Amino acid sequence: MYSIALDVMGGDYAPTAVLEGARSALRQFSELFLYLIGPQEVLKGFPIKERVKFVFTDEYVRMDEAPGEAIKKKRGASIFLGLDLLKENKAKAFVSAGNSGAVVAGSIFILGRISGVRRPAIATLLPTLKEPMVLIDAGANVDSKPYDLYQFAVMASLFLETIWGRPNPKVALLSIGEETGKGNQLVREAYKLLSSSNLNFCGNIEGRDMYRGDVDIVVCDGFIGNICLKLSEGLAENILEMLKNEVKKSYLYILGMYLSKGAIKAFKKRTDWREYGGAPLLGVKGNVIISHGKSDAHAIKNAIRQALYFAKIDLASQLGRAIEEHKIEEDDLES
Amino acid sequence: MYSIALDVMGGDYAPTAVLEGARSALRQFSELFLYLIGPQEVLKGFPIKERVKFVFTDEYVRMDEAPGEAIKKKRGASIFLGLDLLKENKAKAFVSAGNSGAVVAGSIFILGRISGVRRPAIATLLPTLKEPMVLIDAGANVDSKPYDLYQFAVMASLFLETIWGRPNPKVALLSIGEETGKGNQLVREAYKLLSSSNLNFCGNIEGRDMYRGDVDIVVCDGFIGNICLKLSEGLAENILEMLKNEVKKSYLYILGMYLSKGAIKAFKKRTDWREYGGAPLLGVKGNVIISHGKSDAHAIKNAIRQALYFAKIDLASQLGRAIEEHKIEEDDLES
Repeated sequence: MYSIALDVMGGDYAPTAVLEGARSALRQFSELFLYLIGPQEVLKGFPIKERVKFVFTDEYVRMDEAPGEAIKKKRGASIFLGLDLLKENKAKAFVSAGNSGAVVAGSIFILGRISGVRRPAIATLLPTLKEPMVLIDAGANVDSKPYDLYQFAVMASLFLETIWGRPNPKVALLSIGEETGKGNQLVREAYKLLSSSNLNFCGNIEGRDMYRGDVDIVVCDGFIGNICLKLSEGLAENILEMLKNEVKKSYLYILGMYLSKGAIKAFKKRTDWREYGGAPLLGVKGNVIISHGKSDAHAIKNAIRQALYFAKIDLASQLGRAIEEHKIEEDDLES
Repeated sequence: MYSIALDVMGGDYAPTAVLEGARSALRQFSELFLYLIGPQEVLKGFPIKERVKFVFTDEYVRMDEAPGEAIKKKRGASIFLGLDLLKENKAKAFVSAGNSGAVVAGSIFILGRISGVRRPAIATLLPTLKEPMVLIDAGANVDSKPYDLYQFAVMASLFLETIWGRPNPKVALLSIGEETGKGNQLVREAYKLLSSSNLNFCGNIEGRDMYRGDVDIVVCDGFIGNICLKLSEGLAENILEMLKNEVKKSYLYILGMYLSKGAIKAFKKRTDWREYGGAPLLGVKGNVIISHGKSDAHAIKNAIRQALYFAKIDLASQLGRAIEEHKIEEDDLES
C-alpha cells in the first residue's frame, strides 16, 4: 500500500474534478491509499471510505495568490498540509493541481532542497514524433541563472536514467539558433557550462525541432518553458479547431473526417497532456507532483498514477543519492 | 513602378529558390522593378531582362556568421549593398532571407533608426482562429529592456493602424499568467510601462491563448518571440505528421483523409508561414523585409509582394511620422 496526499482544493475545476479523479484512481489502483485534504463540507459526501483518510481544512491557496504571501498567511492551506504529510513520512507523494508557485515555495520551505540543488525545477514529459521527452524547467522558476540551467540538465538526466533506465540521455539547450554563441546571455553562458560537463550535451535546439524527438531533454528557463508548454497545448487545440472549420465547408470533407475519426481520436489521445498525468518537481526532498491547473478528473487520475509510481521507486530519494554521487558541490553554488 | 532590392544570396535555399521567386514575382507584379544582388556567375543566366538590374558582388554573409564581424569585414556583401540601395533611395524596399542578425545590424548601421526608437524589432503576422495578429519582437533583439518592450508595442500599434487602418489595436504582453505581477522581471516592469501608456493595453496573455485571436498584438523579447515562432511552425508540421501516422493504421482512415484532403490543403495554406511573406523590421529608416531562412520560391515571391505593398505606402516614412507624433522623446530613452 502506498499513501498519496491529494490537494482537493487545487485547480480550476476543484473540488469536483479532483474528487472524481480520486474516486476513479481508488477504483483502479488497489495499492493506493489516499489522504484527501480539503474542507469537511466538501469531503463528507465522498463515497469511498476504505483506503482513504480525510484531513480537514477550510484554508486553500487561490490560483492567483502570491506564493510568498500564501505561505506566511495561510500555513493551514491544503497545499501546505499535504506537504506536511510528506515531511512526516505519512504520505509518499503529494499531488496538487493548485497554485504551482505555492507548491514550489511550500516544497522548498517545508521539505527542503536536496543538498547541492539551488533551484528545484518542474520536469514535464511531452510527446514527440518519436519517444516522449522531458522539458525542464516548465515553470518553477523565472529569471534563472546559467548555473541553474546546468543543474536542471543534471537533474533531468538522472531522472530519465532512474525512471526509464535510459543511460546518458541527450540534452539540448533551447535557443534561437543551433550554432554556439546563438541566444541570449543566459543561454550563451549555460552553453559553456553544459559543454564542459559530463552530460551528453548535444548543443542548442531551436523551437521548430523540439517535437522531433531527436533529444531526450530540452533545458530552458521556467519562464520560457512555461510559455512553450502552454503555447503547444493551445496550438494543438487550435489547429484541430482550424481544421474542423475547413472541414465544415463541404459534406464530402465531413464524410471523410467521419471515416477517419478513429485516427483523430488516437492522435488526440497521444498528444493530450491529460494522459501524461502530472509533472514532478525535481530537487526537493519528497515526491511532489504538480498537475495542470486545468486538470479534469481524468488528468487527476493520471497524476495520481504518476505519483504512485514515483512513490514506489521513491524517486526523490534515488535522485538525492544520484545527485550526491554526481557531486554537485556546495562550492559550485557560488558560480 | 516600384524598385525593390533583393538579396539573391540570402536563405538556406539561395540562390536557386530566391531567383525562382524573383522570376515569378516579376511575372505576377507588373509594377515591380527588381535589383538583384549577387555574384555575376549566378545572375548571368537569369531569364528576364526587363524591369531588372543586376548588382554584382561575390561577397555574402553566411547564415551562421556573427553579424558584427560581417559588417566589419564584408561591407560589400549582398545584404549591405541592398541596404545601400535603400539608403540612396534607388530602391524603395529591401528583401532578404539571409542572416537576420546581419540584416538588423546592417539596417541600423546603414539606414539608421527612426528618431526616438532604441531597438528596431521584427513584426511577424501570424494566423489565429480569427484575424491575423502581430508578434513583436520575432527575433531582432535578445535581452531587451522593459522600455524596449513598450516601444515594440507602440511601433506595432502604429504599424497596424497604418496597414489595416485598425485604430487602437489591442496589445497584450506574453507571460506565464494573466494576473498583474505574473512573469519574469522584464515582463513585470514592462507591464507597468504599458499600463500607464495611451496604448490599448489589455494585460498579460498566456501562451495557450496566443492563437485565439482575441488580441491584435503580442509583445515579447525577441529571444522568446523567435522560439515561439519556430515552435509554432514546427508543431504545426509535426501535428500533421503525427496525424498522418495514425491515419496510416487503417484503410478506412486513409479513405477518409483522402476525401477530406481539400480541407487539409486549405488548412495548410491558411497556417503556412510561406503565405505571409516576410516580416518588416520596424524602427529603421527604410522598408526592410526579413524573410524566413527556409524560404522557398513561393515564400520569396510573397515576401516581394509584401515589400511592394510597403514600398507603395512607404511604411517606414509613415511609421517615422507617426512615432514622431506619438512623442517617443529622446529623454525617455534614459528610463
